[in-house]
Amino acid sequence: MAELQTLQYDTEDMYPSRLYAKPVSIPRQDPVVYSKATDHAPLTAAQIAEYEKKGFLFLDDIFTQYELDEMISEMHRMREDSSIKQREESITEQESGAVRSIFSLHTLSDVFAKLAQDPRLVAIAEYLLGERVYIHQSRLNYKPGFSGKEFYWHSDFETWHTEDGMPRMRALSMSIALTKNESQNGPLMLIPGSHKRYVSCVGATPKNHYLFSLKKQEFGVPDEQSLTQMVREGGIETATGPLGRITLFDCNTMHGSNGNITPYPRSNLFFVFNGLSNRVVEPFSSTETRPEYISARDSIKPLETVIFN
Amino acid sequence: MAELQTLQYDTEDMYPSRLYAKPVSIPRQDPVVYSKATDHAPLTAAQIAEYEKKGFLFLDDIFTQYELDEMISEMHRMREDSSIKQREESITEQESGAVRSIFSLHTLSDVFAKLAQDPRLVAIAEYLLGERVYIHQSRLNYKPGFSGKEFYWHSDFETWHTEDGMPRMRALSMSIALTKNESQNGPLMLIPGSHKRYVSCVGATPKNHYLFSLKKQEFGVPDEQSLTQMVREGGIETATGPLGRITLFDCNTMHGSNGNITPYPRSNLFFVFNGLSNRVVEPFSSTETRPEYISARDSIKPLETVIFN
Repeated sequence: MAELQTLQYDTEDMYPSRLYAKPVSIPRQDPVVYSKATDHAPLTAAQIAEYEKKGFLFLDDIFTQYELDEMISEMHRMREDSSIKQREESITEQESGAVRSIFSLHTLSDVFAKLAQDPRLVAIAEYLLGERVYIHQSRLNYKPGFSGKEFYWHSDFETWHTEDGMPRMRALSMSIALTKNESQNGPLMLIPGSHKRYVSCVGATPKNHYLFSLKKQEFGVPDEQSLTQMVREGGIETATGPLGRITLFDCNTMHGSNGNITPYPRSNLFFVFNGLSNRVVEPFSSTETRPEYISARDSIKPLETVIFN
Repeated sequence: MAELQTLQYDTEDMYPSRLYAKPVSIPRQDPVVYSKATDHAPLTAAQIAEYEKKGFLFLDDIFTQYELDEMISEMHRMREDSSIKQREESITEQESGAVRSIFSLHTLSDVFAKLAQDPRLVAIAEYLLGERVYIHQSRLNYKPGFSGKEFYWHSDFETWHTEDGMPRMRALSMSIALTKNESQNGPLMLIPGSHKRYVSCVGATPKNHYLFSLKKQEFGVPDEQSLTQMVREGGIETATGPLGRITLFDCNTMHGSNGNITPYPRSNLFFVFNGLSNRVVEPFSSTETRPEYISARDSIKPLETVIFN
C-alpha cells in the first residue's frame, strides 16, 4: 500500500463555491462507491446499492450493549469534565451555554480513539472509499432537551472543500446514536439522492468563520430553490432509530435537523473518514485554514488497514 | 338559556401565576367535560372519555374536500392581501418578516366567520363546556418552510388567565390543519394528561408583553422540572395527520412545536371557544388588558346555539 500513501489529488477546484453571485448546481464528478463490486465487501450488495443511490445507509446491531454502555459513560464523563469544557474543542450553545459539541474526540479520549480505529468501521470506510483512510474530523454532538437548536441544511463537503481544502468527494461520515433518536427530539434528516449534485453556495467566507459557523451557519448555506428541487425528487428521510444505530453518509449528502423542545436530549458520535489520497490541500475559498481539531492537516495518520493488506 | 348568559364566575384567582418566586403545581379545580354523560352528545362515549383523560382528541373527516379547498384559498388570499399584512392582527416572523399569524380571522373574513359558527364545531364546544359559547380568539397560524420557528411549551390558559382575565378552565381550542402535518415540519406536540395540573409560572408580566410574546414567549413559561415530570407521566403525542384534521384540546393542555427547516410549510386555523359564564374579567396578573383582536372582551357574542335550545 506504500504507493497509495503518496498519491494525492491535485489542487484543481472541481467544486467551486462561495465564488458566484447566484447558486449553481454542479453534477458530482466523483464515484460514490470506489471499490469494485468484485472486491471483498464488509456490506451486502443491497446495502452498497442503497448507499450508492441514496447517499446514506443505516446500520444496526454493530455494537454490543457493553460497548454502548462504555461509550455513553465516556460521553457523560467528558461533558462534565470542566477541563474539557474550557478547551477550544468544546462548542457551547449560543443562548444557554450548554456543551453542544466536543471536537477531536479521538485525541481527547482513549475510549473514542479506540472506537475510531475499530476494524468494523474502518473496513466499511476503506471499502466505500477504495483506499486507506484517516480521521478528518471527529466530534460528540449533544442536542440538549428543551433548548436544542436546529442545524440548517448543508453538505459537509461544501465546507470541507471551501474552508479546509478537501479536494474531492472521497470522504464519508459515521454518526453513532448514543440516545434513541425519535421523530420529536430533532433527529437528523437527510435528502436521498442529494449527494449526486453539488450546490455551489453564494457569499464569500468571512474571516474566522468557524468560530460562529459551528453555532449558526450563515455562509455555505444552500439556496431554497435547490433544496426544494432536491426534496421534490428524493423526499426527506429521518434517522430515527435505536441507540447504537450508525448513520453512514456520504460527504456531500444534504442533511440538517430541527430544534428540540422536548425533555429528551439527543446525542451522537461523529467520525469523518477521508481517503488518504484526498487529504486536504489549501482551502479552495478561504484565506485561512481551520484549526487542527476541526480539520486534520498536520496530524494525519492513516488508520490501521483492514481491507488493504 | 337566558339565565346562563347572565351567570358569570367571580373574580377569585383560582390559578395564580407569575406571582411566586418558584414554580408551583396546582391541581385543576374545574371539570374537563361539563355536560353529563346522559346529555345528547355530538361525540362518542369513547371520544369523550379520551378527551377527558388526555386533554385532547383528533377528529378526522369532518369537512368535505370542497370546504377544505375554500378554506385554503381563503388562507392564501389573506396572506397575500397587503392591506391585511399591514394590520395589527398580522404577526410576522422575527427574522424573515413572513406572516406567521393572522388574528381575529372570524372578523376579517366571511369564510372564516361562517366556519366559526359551523354547527358541527359549535355543538362539540357546547357539549364539552356545558353551556353557550363564544369565540375568545381566532387565528391563522402559518409556519413557513425553511425558517419556521419553534413555539415553546405552554398552557394557553396560563396566558388567558393572567393576561386576559379568563377566570376558569372552561374553554377549548380547535386547530384545523390546512396542510398535511408530518413529523418533520414542526407539528403540534401535546402532553397527555397535562391539563389536569396547572403550572404556576415564575416572573411578572412585563408591559405590552403581547407585542413580543407572540413572536417569542419569555414569561408564562413553564419550568423544565414540571415539564419533565408531565412527560414522564404522559409522554408526548404529535398531531401528525391529514389535511382537514381537527385537533381539539383543552385550554390547559401543555403543548408546543419544534421549528421547521423542511421546504414544507405548515398551516392551521385556530378557534378558541369559551363558555359564556367564563367570559373575561380583569387580568389576574397584568396591569393592562390585551387588544380586542387577541382576547374578545367588548365584542363578545354568543354563537348560535346548537345543543342548548
